[in-house]
Amino acid sequence: MRLRRVKNAEKIINDNKYVVKDPLLYCGEYKQLFANNNPIRLEIGMGKGQFLINMAIKYPNINFIGIEKQASVLVRAVEKVENLELNNLLFINSDANKINEIFVKEIELIYLNFSDPWPKKKHAKRRLTSINFLKKYDNIFLEDKIIIMKTDNRHLFEGSIVSLNNYEYLIEEICLDLHQDQDINNIMTEYEEKFISLGFPIYKLVAKKTKS
Amino acid sequence: MRLRRVKNAEKIINDNKYVVKDPLLYCGEYKQLFANNNPIRLEIGMGKGQFLINMAIKYPNINFIGIEKQASVLVRAVEKVENLELNNLLFINSDANKINEIFVKEIELIYLNFSDPWPKKKHAKRRLTSINFLKKYDNIFLEDKIIIMKTDNRHLFEGSIVSLNNYEYLIEEICLDLHQDQDINNIMTEYEEKFISLGFPIYKLVAKKTKS
Repeated sequence: MRLRRVKNAEKIINDNKYVVKDPLLYCGEYKQLFANNNPIRLEIGMGKGQFLINMAIKYPNINFIGIEKQASVLVRAVEKVENLELNNLLFINSDANKINEIFVKEIELIYLNFSDPWPKKKHAKRRLTSINFLKKYDNIFLEDKIIIMKTDNRHLFEGSIVSLNNYEYLIEEICLDLHQDQDINNIMTEYEEKFISLGFPIYKLVAKKTKS
Repeated sequence: MRLRRVKNAEKIINDNKYVVKDPLLYCGEYKQLFANNNPIRLEIGMGKGQFLINMAIKYPNINFIGIEKQASVLVRAVEKVENLELNNLLFINSDANKINEIFVKEIELIYLNFSDPWPKKKHAKRRLTSINFLKKYDNIFLEDKIIIMKTDNRHLFEGSIVSLNNYEYLIEEICLDLHQDQDINNIMTEYEEKFISLGFPIYKLVAKKTKS
Protein backbone atom coordinates (compact mmCIF):
# COMPACT_ATOMS: atom_id res chain seq x y z
CA MET A 1 0.00 0.00 0.00
CA ARG A 2 1.45 3.34 -1.01
CA LEU A 3 0.20 6.38 0.86
CA ARG A 4 1.21 9.99 0.91
CA ARG A 5 3.58 10.76 3.75
CA VAL A 6 1.83 12.04 6.83
CA LYS A 7 3.57 14.97 8.45
CA ASN A 8 4.92 14.14 11.89
CA ALA A 9 3.65 10.53 11.58
CA GLU A 10 6.55 9.19 13.59
CA LYS A 11 6.13 11.75 16.35
CA ILE A 12 2.37 11.11 16.57
CA ILE A 13 3.01 7.37 16.79
CA ASN A 14 5.69 7.64 19.41
CA ASP A 15 3.50 9.79 21.64
CA ASN A 16 0.59 7.34 21.51
CA LYS A 17 -0.27 4.97 24.35
CA TYR A 18 -1.18 2.09 22.03
CA VAL A 19 2.23 2.04 20.38
CA VAL A 20 5.01 -0.03 21.94
CA LYS A 21 8.06 2.22 21.99
CA ASP A 22 10.90 -0.28 22.29
CA PRO A 23 9.38 -3.56 21.16
CA LEU A 24 12.67 -5.46 21.37
CA LEU A 25 12.71 -4.87 25.13
CA TYR A 26 9.53 -6.91 25.60
CA CYS A 27 10.52 -9.99 23.60
CA GLY A 28 8.90 -12.92 25.42
CA GLU A 29 7.21 -10.55 27.88
CA TYR A 30 4.21 -9.11 26.05
CA LYS A 31 1.77 -10.57 28.51
CA GLN A 32 3.30 -8.23 31.09
CA LEU A 33 2.36 -5.27 28.92
CA PHE A 34 -1.23 -6.51 28.82
CA ALA A 35 -1.05 -7.37 32.55
CA ASN A 36 -3.01 -10.60 32.06
CA ASN A 37 -2.65 -14.17 30.79
CA ASN A 38 -5.11 -13.89 27.90
CA PRO A 39 -3.97 -15.29 24.55
CA ILE A 40 -2.12 -12.92 22.25
CA ARG A 41 -2.94 -12.76 18.56
CA LEU A 42 -0.81 -10.95 16.02
CA GLU A 43 -1.66 -9.24 12.74
CA ILE A 44 1.35 -8.78 10.50
CA GLY A 45 0.87 -5.83 8.16
CA MET A 46 -2.09 -4.33 10.03
CA GLY A 47 -2.32 -1.30 7.75
CA LYS A 48 -4.80 1.30 8.97
CA GLY A 49 -6.02 -1.04 11.71
CA GLN A 50 -9.76 -1.40 11.09
CA PHE A 51 -9.69 -5.21 11.35
CA LEU A 52 -7.56 -5.34 14.49
CA ILE A 53 -9.38 -2.54 16.30
CA ASN A 54 -12.78 -4.11 15.65
CA MET A 55 -11.48 -7.51 16.75
CA ALA A 56 -10.18 -5.96 19.98
CA ILE A 57 -13.58 -4.37 20.62
CA LYS A 58 -15.44 -7.60 19.83
CA TYR A 59 -13.18 -9.93 21.81
CA PRO A 60 -12.10 -8.20 25.05
CA ASN A 61 -10.64 -11.43 26.47
CA ILE A 62 -8.13 -11.78 23.67
CA ASN A 63 -5.09 -9.53 23.33
CA PHE A 64 -4.26 -8.18 19.89
CA ILE A 65 -0.97 -6.83 18.57
CA GLY A 66 -0.57 -5.32 15.12
CA ILE A 67 2.68 -4.76 13.28
CA GLU A 68 2.93 -2.18 10.52
CA LYS A 69 6.18 -0.99 9.02
CA GLN A 70 4.92 2.25 7.48
CA ALA A 71 4.52 5.04 10.02
CA SER A 72 2.32 6.99 7.58
CA VAL A 73 -0.15 4.09 7.58
CA LEU A 74 0.05 3.18 11.26
CA VAL A 75 -0.80 6.75 12.17
CA ARG A 76 -4.28 6.19 10.71
CA ALA A 77 -4.85 3.34 13.15
CA VAL A 78 -3.62 5.50 16.00
CA GLU A 79 -6.15 8.19 15.05
CA LYS A 80 -8.96 5.62 15.16
CA VAL A 81 -8.26 4.51 18.72
CA GLU A 82 -7.16 7.72 20.41
CA ASN A 83 -10.58 8.23 22.02
CA LEU A 84 -11.08 4.57 22.92
CA GLU A 85 -9.99 2.76 26.08
CA LEU A 86 -8.90 -0.65 24.85
CA ASN A 87 -6.65 -2.59 27.21
CA ASN A 88 -6.22 -5.49 24.81
CA LEU A 89 -4.63 -3.75 21.84
CA LEU A 90 -1.08 -2.72 20.99
CA PHE A 91 0.65 -1.51 17.83
CA ILE A 92 4.26 -1.96 16.78
CA ASN A 93 5.94 0.09 14.07
CA SER A 94 8.33 -2.45 12.60
CA ASP A 95 9.25 -4.48 9.59
CA ALA A 96 7.95 -8.08 9.65
CA ASN A 97 11.48 -9.28 9.02
CA LYS A 98 12.37 -8.38 12.59
CA ILE A 99 9.65 -10.56 14.06
CA ASN A 100 12.03 -12.97 15.80
CA GLU A 101 13.64 -10.08 17.64
CA ILE A 102 10.24 -8.86 18.85
CA PHE A 103 8.43 -12.07 19.91
CA VAL A 104 9.38 -15.46 21.29
CA LYS A 105 6.94 -18.23 22.20
CA GLU A 106 4.00 -15.99 23.03
CA ILE A 107 1.65 -15.78 20.03
CA GLU A 108 -1.51 -17.90 19.77
CA LEU A 109 -2.45 -17.07 16.20
CA ILE A 110 -1.27 -14.93 13.27
CA TYR A 111 -3.58 -12.97 10.97
CA LEU A 112 -2.38 -12.15 7.46
CA ASN A 113 -4.89 -9.84 5.81
CA PHE A 114 -4.42 -8.71 2.22
CA SER A 115 -0.66 -9.05 2.43
CA ASP A 116 1.53 -7.71 -0.34
CA PRO A 117 1.41 -10.41 -3.06
CA TRP A 118 4.97 -9.72 -4.31
CA PRO A 119 4.02 -11.16 -7.71
CA LYS A 120 7.52 -11.34 -9.17
CA LYS A 121 9.28 -14.66 -8.66
CA LYS A 122 12.47 -12.93 -7.54
CA HIS A 123 10.48 -11.42 -4.64
CA ALA A 124 8.80 -14.69 -3.59
CA LYS A 125 10.77 -14.78 -0.31
CA ARG A 126 9.11 -11.54 0.76
CA ARG A 127 5.61 -13.06 0.72
CA LEU A 128 4.39 -13.48 4.28
CA THR A 129 3.47 -17.14 3.59
CA SER A 130 6.83 -18.03 2.02
CA ILE A 131 8.87 -20.77 3.69
CA ASN A 132 11.23 -17.95 4.67
CA PHE A 133 8.54 -16.37 6.87
CA LEU A 134 6.90 -19.64 8.00
CA LYS A 135 10.27 -20.57 9.51
CA LYS A 136 10.40 -17.28 11.40
CA TYR A 137 6.87 -17.80 12.76
CA ASP A 138 7.79 -21.20 14.25
CA ASN A 139 9.58 -19.55 17.13
CA ILE A 140 7.03 -16.88 17.99
CA PHE A 141 4.10 -19.28 18.50
CA LEU A 142 3.40 -20.39 22.06
CA GLU A 143 1.90 -23.83 21.31
CA ASP A 144 -0.12 -24.67 18.21
CA LYS A 145 0.78 -22.76 15.07
CA ILE A 146 -2.33 -21.22 13.54
CA ILE A 147 -2.46 -18.81 10.60
CA ILE A 148 -5.65 -17.15 9.38
CA MET A 149 -5.27 -15.54 5.98
CA LYS A 150 -7.53 -13.38 3.82
CA THR A 151 -6.66 -12.03 0.40
CA ASP A 152 -8.15 -11.05 -2.93
CA ASN A 153 -4.97 -12.08 -4.75
CA ARG A 154 -5.51 -15.46 -6.38
CA HIS A 155 -1.87 -16.25 -7.11
CA LEU A 156 -0.80 -15.31 -3.59
CA PHE A 157 -3.54 -17.54 -2.18
CA GLU A 158 -2.71 -20.49 -4.45
CA GLY A 159 0.99 -20.21 -3.62
CA SER A 160 0.21 -19.90 0.08
CA ILE A 161 -1.78 -23.17 0.13
CA VAL A 162 1.14 -25.05 -1.44
CA SER A 163 3.71 -23.31 0.78
CA LEU A 164 1.71 -23.98 3.97
CA ASN A 165 1.23 -27.67 3.05
CA ASN A 166 4.93 -27.96 2.24
CA TYR A 167 5.74 -26.62 5.70
CA GLU A 168 3.38 -29.09 7.43
CA TYR A 169 0.50 -26.73 7.98
CA LEU A 170 -2.83 -28.37 7.16
CA ILE A 171 -5.80 -26.43 5.82
CA GLU A 172 -8.55 -26.70 8.45
CA GLU A 173 -11.00 -24.29 6.83
CA ILE A 174 -11.09 -22.63 3.44
CA CYS A 175 -13.48 -20.33 1.64
CA LEU A 176 -13.02 -19.25 -1.97
CA ASP A 177 -15.68 -16.55 -1.96
CA LEU A 178 -16.03 -15.20 1.56
CA HIS A 179 -18.77 -12.69 0.93
CA GLN A 180 -20.96 -15.15 -0.96
CA ASP A 181 -21.10 -17.28 2.17
CA GLN A 182 -22.07 -14.28 4.32
CA ASP A 183 -19.97 -15.08 7.38
CA ILE A 184 -21.58 -12.80 9.95
CA ASN A 185 -18.49 -13.03 12.15
CA ASN A 186 -16.20 -11.72 9.45
CA ILE A 187 -14.59 -8.42 10.36
CA MET A 188 -13.50 -6.53 7.29
CA THR A 189 -10.32 -4.60 6.60
CA GLU A 190 -10.49 -1.22 4.86
CA TYR A 191 -9.15 -2.81 1.69
CA GLU A 192 -11.69 -5.64 1.84
CA GLU A 193 -14.59 -3.18 2.08
CA LYS A 194 -13.44 -1.39 -1.05
CA PHE A 195 -12.66 -4.59 -2.89
CA ILE A 196 -15.90 -6.50 -2.41
CA SER A 197 -17.84 -3.65 -3.99
CA LEU A 198 -16.08 -4.63 -7.24
CA GLY A 199 -17.58 -8.13 -7.02
CA PHE A 200 -14.33 -10.09 -6.97
CA PRO A 201 -13.95 -13.03 -4.57
CA ILE A 202 -12.15 -12.78 -1.23
CA TYR A 203 -10.25 -15.93 -0.30
CA LYS A 204 -9.83 -17.08 3.30
CA LEU A 205 -8.12 -20.00 5.01
CA VAL A 206 -7.32 -21.28 8.47
CA ALA A 207 -4.11 -23.36 8.58
CA LYS A 208 -2.66 -25.24 11.53
CA LYS A 209 0.72 -26.86 11.94
CA THR A 210 0.38 -30.11 13.82
CA LYS A 211 4.03 -31.09 14.07
CA SER A 212 7.03 -29.08 15.21
CA MET B 1 -25.63 -35.84 -14.74
CA ARG B 2 -29.11 -36.91 -15.76
CA LEU B 3 -29.56 -38.09 -19.32
CA ARG B 4 -32.41 -39.61 -21.23
CA ARG B 5 -32.13 -43.37 -21.37
CA VAL B 6 -30.41 -44.64 -24.49
CA LYS B 7 -32.12 -47.62 -26.04
CA ASN B 8 -29.97 -50.74 -25.95
CA ALA B 9 -27.18 -48.85 -24.13
CA GLU B 10 -26.16 -51.92 -22.17
CA LYS B 11 -26.07 -54.11 -25.23
CA ILE B 12 -24.01 -51.55 -27.19
CA ILE B 13 -21.57 -51.29 -24.29
CA ASN B 14 -21.20 -55.01 -23.83
CA ASP B 15 -20.45 -55.55 -27.50
CA ASN B 16 -17.72 -52.90 -27.55
CA LYS B 17 -14.01 -53.73 -27.52
CA TYR B 18 -13.11 -50.83 -25.20
CA VAL B 19 -15.43 -52.02 -22.45
CA VAL B 20 -14.16 -54.54 -19.90
CA LYS B 21 -16.87 -57.20 -19.60
CA ASP B 22 -16.09 -58.76 -16.24
CA PRO B 23 -13.92 -56.18 -14.48
CA LEU B 24 -13.78 -58.14 -11.21
CA LEU B 25 -11.91 -60.91 -13.02
CA TYR B 26 -8.98 -58.58 -13.74
CA CYS B 27 -8.49 -57.18 -10.25
CA GLY B 28 -4.72 -56.67 -9.91
CA GLU B 29 -4.18 -57.77 -13.51
CA TYR B 30 -5.10 -54.79 -15.66
CA LYS B 31 -1.62 -54.49 -17.10
CA GLN B 32 -2.26 -57.87 -18.74
CA LEU B 33 -5.25 -56.38 -20.54
CA PHE B 34 -3.03 -53.58 -21.86
CA ALA B 35 -0.24 -56.09 -22.55
CA ASN B 36 2.46 -53.67 -21.35
CA ASN B 37 3.97 -52.21 -18.18
CA ASN B 38 2.98 -48.60 -18.78
CA PRO B 39 1.43 -46.73 -15.85
CA ILE B 40 -2.33 -46.95 -15.47
CA ARG B 41 -4.38 -43.86 -14.70
CA LEU B 42 -8.01 -43.97 -13.68
CA GLU B 43 -10.86 -41.49 -14.15
CA ILE B 44 -13.73 -42.11 -11.75
CA GLY B 45 -16.99 -40.83 -13.20
CA MET B 46 -15.70 -40.45 -16.77
CA GLY B 47 -19.09 -39.40 -18.15
CA LYS B 48 -19.12 -39.14 -21.93
CA GLY B 49 -15.37 -39.67 -22.08
CA GLN B 50 -14.05 -36.60 -23.90
CA PHE B 51 -11.30 -35.97 -21.33
CA LEU B 52 -10.11 -39.57 -21.12
CA ILE B 53 -10.21 -40.22 -24.87
CA ASN B 54 -8.20 -37.08 -25.62
CA MET B 55 -5.71 -37.96 -22.89
CA ALA B 56 -5.31 -41.44 -24.39
CA ILE B 57 -4.66 -39.92 -27.81
CA LYS B 58 -2.20 -37.36 -26.42
CA TYR B 59 -0.28 -39.76 -24.16
CA PRO B 60 0.09 -43.13 -25.93
CA ASN B 61 2.60 -44.39 -23.35
CA ILE B 62 0.13 -44.08 -20.49
CA ASN B 63 -2.82 -46.44 -20.05
CA PHE B 64 -6.19 -44.92 -19.17
CA ILE B 65 -9.21 -46.56 -17.60
CA GLY B 66 -12.50 -44.79 -17.09
CA ILE B 67 -15.31 -45.86 -14.77
CA GLU B 68 -18.86 -44.71 -15.35
CA LYS B 69 -21.88 -46.18 -13.63
CA GLN B 70 -24.54 -44.99 -16.07
CA ALA B 71 -24.72 -47.10 -19.20
CA SER B 72 -26.68 -44.35 -20.98
CA VAL B 73 -23.72 -42.00 -20.47
CA LEU B 74 -20.92 -44.48 -21.12
CA VAL B 75 -22.48 -45.33 -24.47
CA ARG B 76 -21.62 -41.81 -25.67
CA ALA B 77 -17.95 -42.47 -24.95
CA VAL B 78 -18.17 -45.78 -26.78
CA GLU B 79 -19.58 -44.01 -29.83
CA LYS B 80 -16.65 -41.57 -29.82
CA VAL B 81 -13.98 -44.28 -29.98
CA GLU B 82 -15.57 -46.94 -32.15
CA ASN B 83 -13.59 -45.85 -35.21
CA LEU B 84 -10.33 -45.28 -33.33
CA GLU B 85 -7.59 -47.80 -32.61
CA LEU B 86 -6.45 -46.91 -29.10
CA ASN B 87 -4.58 -49.65 -27.29
CA ASN B 88 -4.22 -47.61 -24.10
CA LEU B 89 -7.87 -47.04 -23.22
CA LEU B 90 -10.51 -49.11 -21.41
CA PHE B 91 -13.93 -48.37 -20.00
CA ILE B 92 -15.69 -50.01 -17.08
CA ASN B 93 -19.44 -49.74 -16.44
CA SER B 94 -19.54 -49.79 -12.65
CA ASP B 95 -20.35 -47.86 -9.53
CA ALA B 96 -17.33 -46.19 -7.87
CA ASN B 97 -18.28 -47.91 -4.62
CA LYS B 98 -17.05 -51.20 -6.07
CA ILE B 99 -13.59 -49.85 -6.79
CA ASN B 100 -11.83 -52.13 -4.31
CA GLU B 101 -13.30 -55.18 -6.02
CA ILE B 102 -12.05 -53.97 -9.41
CA PHE B 103 -8.51 -52.74 -8.69
CA VAL B 104 -5.70 -53.56 -6.30
CA LYS B 105 -2.27 -51.89 -6.22
CA GLU B 106 -2.15 -50.98 -9.90
CA ILE B 107 -3.22 -47.35 -10.34
CA GLU B 108 -0.68 -44.51 -10.72
CA LEU B 109 -3.07 -41.57 -10.52
CA ILE B 110 -6.79 -40.85 -10.17
CA TYR B 111 -8.63 -38.10 -12.06
CA LEU B 112 -11.81 -36.69 -10.57
CA ASN B 113 -13.42 -34.35 -13.08
CA PHE B 114 -16.58 -32.43 -12.21
CA SER B 115 -17.70 -35.09 -9.76
CA ASP B 116 -21.19 -34.98 -8.30
CA PRO B 117 -20.97 -32.40 -5.46
CA TRP B 118 -23.59 -34.11 -3.28
CA PRO B 119 -24.32 -30.78 -1.58
CA LYS B 120 -26.47 -32.12 1.24
CA LYS B 121 -24.58 -32.92 4.44
CA LYS B 122 -26.33 -36.28 4.78
CA HIS B 123 -24.82 -37.28 1.40
CA ALA B 124 -21.27 -36.11 2.24
CA LYS B 125 -19.96 -39.69 2.27
CA ARG B 126 -20.85 -40.05 -1.39
CA ARG B 127 -18.48 -37.27 -2.47
CA LEU B 128 -15.52 -38.81 -4.28
CA THR B 129 -13.09 -36.88 -2.06
CA SER B 130 -14.76 -37.88 1.23
CA ILE B 131 -12.65 -39.81 3.73
CA ASN B 132 -14.92 -42.75 2.86
CA PHE B 133 -13.58 -42.79 -0.71
CA LEU B 134 -10.02 -41.70 0.12
CA LYS B 135 -9.77 -44.85 2.26
CA LYS B 136 -10.92 -46.99 -0.65
CA TYR B 137 -8.34 -45.40 -2.97
CA ASP B 138 -5.45 -46.31 -0.64
CA ASN B 139 -5.52 -49.88 -1.76
CA ILE B 140 -5.83 -49.35 -5.49
CA PHE B 141 -2.72 -47.15 -5.83
CA LEU B 142 0.49 -48.88 -6.84
CA GLU B 143 2.99 -46.55 -5.11
CA ASP B 144 2.45 -42.82 -4.58
CA LYS B 145 -1.13 -41.70 -4.16
CA ILE B 146 -1.90 -38.86 -6.56
CA ILE B 147 -5.31 -37.30 -7.19
CA ILE B 148 -5.93 -34.64 -9.85
CA MET B 149 -9.27 -32.92 -9.43
CA LYS B 150 -11.19 -30.36 -11.48
CA THR B 151 -14.55 -28.89 -10.60
CA ASP B 152 -16.69 -25.80 -10.94
CA ASN B 153 -18.34 -26.49 -7.58
CA ARG B 154 -16.82 -24.22 -4.95
CA HIS B 155 -18.15 -26.01 -1.89
CA LEU B 156 -17.06 -29.40 -3.21
CA PHE B 157 -13.59 -27.99 -3.89
CA GLU B 158 -13.28 -26.32 -0.48
CA GLY B 159 -14.44 -29.49 1.29
CA SER B 160 -12.06 -31.58 -0.81
CA ILE B 161 -9.01 -29.53 0.22
CA VAL B 162 -9.85 -30.00 3.90
CA SER B 163 -10.68 -33.69 3.44
CA LEU B 164 -7.48 -34.37 1.47
CA ASN B 165 -5.33 -32.58 4.08
CA ASN B 166 -7.07 -34.49 6.86
CA TYR B 167 -6.18 -37.73 5.12
CA GLU B 168 -2.51 -36.75 4.72
CA TYR B 169 -2.65 -35.70 1.10
CA LEU B 170 -0.71 -32.47 0.51
CA ILE B 171 -1.71 -29.96 -2.15
CA GLU B 172 1.17 -29.84 -4.64
CA GLU B 173 -0.50 -27.59 -7.21
CA ILE B 174 -3.68 -25.56 -7.12
CA CYS B 175 -5.42 -23.20 -9.51
CA LEU B 176 -8.55 -21.26 -8.61
CA ASP B 177 -9.36 -20.07 -12.11
CA LEU B 178 -7.98 -22.56 -14.60
CA HIS B 179 -9.01 -20.81 -17.77
CA GLN B 180 -7.62 -17.45 -16.70
CA ASP B 181 -4.19 -19.04 -16.49
CA GLN B 182 -4.53 -20.54 -19.97
CA ASP B 183 -2.94 -23.91 -19.29
CA ILE B 184 -2.28 -25.10 -22.83
CA ASN B 185 -1.97 -28.69 -21.60
CA ASN B 186 -5.44 -28.69 -20.09
CA ILE B 187 -7.77 -31.18 -21.72
CA MET B 188 -11.39 -30.23 -21.20
CA THR B 189 -14.38 -32.38 -20.34
CA GLU B 190 -17.70 -31.82 -22.11
CA TYR B 191 -19.06 -30.19 -18.98
CA GLU B 192 -16.06 -27.91 -18.64
CA GLU B 193 -16.45 -26.64 -22.22
CA LYS B 194 -20.05 -25.68 -21.57
CA PHE B 195 -19.30 -24.22 -18.17
CA ILE B 196 -16.42 -21.89 -19.03
CA SER B 197 -18.58 -20.13 -21.60
CA LEU B 198 -20.59 -18.85 -18.62
CA GLY B 199 -17.48 -17.17 -17.20
CA PHE B 200 -17.38 -18.99 -13.85
CA PRO B 201 -14.05 -20.25 -12.51
CA ILE B 202 -12.89 -23.84 -12.83
CA TYR B 203 -10.89 -25.06 -9.84
CA LYS B 204 -8.06 -27.59 -10.15
CA LEU B 205 -5.69 -29.27 -7.72
CA VAL B 206 -2.99 -31.92 -7.64
CA ALA B 207 -2.78 -33.72 -4.29
CA LYS B 208 -0.26 -36.33 -3.20
CA LYS B 209 -0.21 -38.56 -0.16
CA THR B 210 3.30 -38.88 1.13
CA LYS B 211 2.69 -41.39 3.92
CA SER B 212 0.80 -44.65 3.92
